[in-house]
Amino acid sequence: MTEPKNEQNPSAGVNTDAQGLLPWKTVEGQKEPHMMIFRPRYDQVQHPRTGESFQRLVLDTPDWVNVVARTPEGQYVLAKQYRFGSQDMTLEIPGGMVEKAEPHGDAAKRELQEETGYTSDQWTYLGCVQPNPAFHNNLCHHWLAQDAQLTAPQNMDSGEDIAIVLQSEAQVREGIASGAIAHSLVLTALCKVLDLRIPL
Amino acid sequence: MTEPKNEQNPSAGVNTDAQGLLPWKTVEGQKEPHMMIFRPRYDQVQHPRTGESFQRLVLDTPDWVNVVARTPEGQYVLAKQYRFGSQDMTLEIPGGMVEKAEPHGDAAKRELQEETGYTSDQWTYLGCVQPNPAFHNNLCHHWLAQDAQLTAPQNMDSGEDIAIVLQSEAQVREGIASGAIAHSLVLTALCKVLDLRIPL
Repeated sequence: MTEPKNEQNPSAGVNTDAQGLLPWKTVEGQKEPHMMIFRPRYDQVQHPRTGESFQRLVLDTPDWVNVVARTPEGQYVLAKQYRFGSQDMTLEIPGGMVEKAEPHGDAAKRELQEETGYTSDQWTYLGCVQPNPAFHNNLCHHWLAQDAQLTAPQNMDSGEDIAIVLQSEAQVREGIASGAIAHSLVLTALCKVLDLRIPL
Repeated sequence: MTEPKNEQNPSAGVNTDAQGLLPWKTVEGQKEPHMMIFRPRYDQVQHPRTGESFQRLVLDTPDWVNVVARTPEGQYVLAKQYRFGSQDMTLEIPGGMVEKAEPHGDAAKRELQEETGYTSDQWTYLGCVQPNPAFHNNLCHHWLAQDAQLTAPQNMDSGEDIAIVLQSEAQVREGIASGAIAHSLVLTALCKVLDLRIPL
């Protein structure tokens, strides 16, 4: 593709990457009021080839964490709860927000214990994903807790009502197939430990 | 757990599910102004056991769709672009929003062609996920396009700058391992056709 011959061309002097893509010049917008779980802002971004400006929404969002927890018997520790976005009951692995300055491994241990009462001494990091890089700027970290045992009471917020559900691997697979387990970030964690291919 | 003995108890007469969970009474809030890609509202929800009320953010969001497209040679058709949330270049499968009244299968075909110029006659539905049921009310539908061929020019919005990248299965796996492919909804689609387990 030919670069526009334009003195305003923001790409002048910028190295392109292997595909010839150029970075977008971004002017971060003022942060809008907090929306409970993230803080929006409207950035002004400039197309690197045409110089045209656009407004883009960014939700400034803390990192999240979730935990694949398995008992010594190979049962998966799941959390069932009513979700206010989808307005239905969901079956998920435990998880939540990483607090400010909290290492995400500590957040994983805290969320597992608070939501389910299970704890573990055997933790493995499963990597992280971008929940949605189109508008979120956060990561979701996935952890595996093996040999998880019920050692404490649940410690829910007053705004939570979570039931603990233990399921075998076969039941988890059935839940994914039926759509009972459908939260994308639950699936990106589970696919690290289970082969989730479907028959084609 | 004992039900609260309270005439205000919103759960009176409501059947519980297998885990004893009860639905939350929800009063939908006024829709706030559109935020470009979704419309927020603040619902009032009532805890089914305690009767306590909470405000919860819901982002009213259209369904999304994305496409695992493979060429006759087994190459994956990927879209590389700058993302305004994460403020970095991402490598993704093609996808986008389902338009109002548009069947999601049509949206899959449209997005593949617009973003990459590839088309296919061999489409298979891979199922759907909830992007984030905590605050989104939408689904993301996953489609597989086999025998995809470059038959048309890209047809990008003026606000897009997308490079097409063809990768072998081995390269896709490397990209996932390195974090170059990290969008959660790309991974929930790819895990339907690739075993994404990591060595433990």
